[in-house]
Amino acid sequence: MALRSDLSAKACSIARGADVLADPWILLLLRELFRGTHRFDALVTATGCSDSVTAKRLTTLREAGLVIRVPYREGGRERHEYRLTAAGADTLPILHALSRWGARHTPDHGTLDISCARCETRPPSADWCPTCALPLTANVTIWRAPTSPEVPERLSGS
Amino acid sequence: MALRSDLSAKACSIARGADVLADPWILLLLRELFRGTHRFDALVTATGCSDSVTAKRLTTLREAGLVIRVPYREGGRERHEYRLTAAGADTLPILHALSRWGARHTPDHGTLDISCARCETRPPSADWCPTCALPLTANVTIWRAPTSPEVPERLSGS
Repeated sequence: MALRSDLSAKACSIARGADVLADPWILLLLRELFRGTHRFDALVTATGCSDSVTAKRLTTLREAGLVIRVPYREGGRERHEYRLTAAGADTLPILHALSRWGARHTPDHGTLDISCARCETRPPSADWCPTCALPLTANVTIWRAPTSPEVPERLSGS
Repeated sequence: MALRSDLSAKACSIARGADVLADPWILLLLRELFRGTHRFDALVTATGCSDSVTAKRLTTLREAGLVIRVPYREGGRERHEYRLTAAGADTLPILHALSRWGARHTPDHGTLDISCARCETRPPSADWCPTCALPLTANVTIWRAPTSPEVPERLSGS
């Protein structure tokens, strides 16, 4: 599966990760899936991405095994929502590392607040809680969005 | 600074990080700069990126403050090499998180081996060494490339 040049068969695991994930809309869709946004229209609204690009990126995410489609019924019609797989949930450290870099090295327009649900500390790492001496995975991560910092959000993993 | 859509003023720090870094060639150039590849032609060779795209991405990295140009003389001509700034060196957790994801969730064509120079363990984190209870920054990270695993590479930070 290629975004632009095909890096999917490179010996370098950074290149193979980048092949799937080095795309802004892919990353924003993952962010929203972690936040519990599962339906197409809501993903479009939350990311600010167009319908057609959203559809293409969700196909990319499904083909790469990060997202599955789950049917539901609405108004007598079968529709689908999108859920992270275990491989999708494993992207959390990438989002956290980007957020930490963005908070530190871009003009301050707001920062995602990331904490560990077990100990309620803010780990100094993208994927490890030193207080608990355990990984910081989706099922133990709490986000507070810069636009609604009073609302703790338990992440929606696989 | 925008790659495709401009996400540089978003309240979300993930979006602002992605605005600069969510591009495969940007990430491969950073990888090579960490490995001590500093000259334009060597960066082109090591990444497999074209001359024109390499030049554009190096300009992006300079404008975003991740890379500086340093003059040197060769054959009587002044030329320039590229070095990571502190902001550039701070992207290491993103590369490590991508590598960990790529190693785990893409077909196995090789894996970057990442270890801590202080304790010589392989941390289970993109940016934290639990053995040392300290961050895993560029100046204490050793890579062994999948194509030359017998060669430990001390990273070239800022």
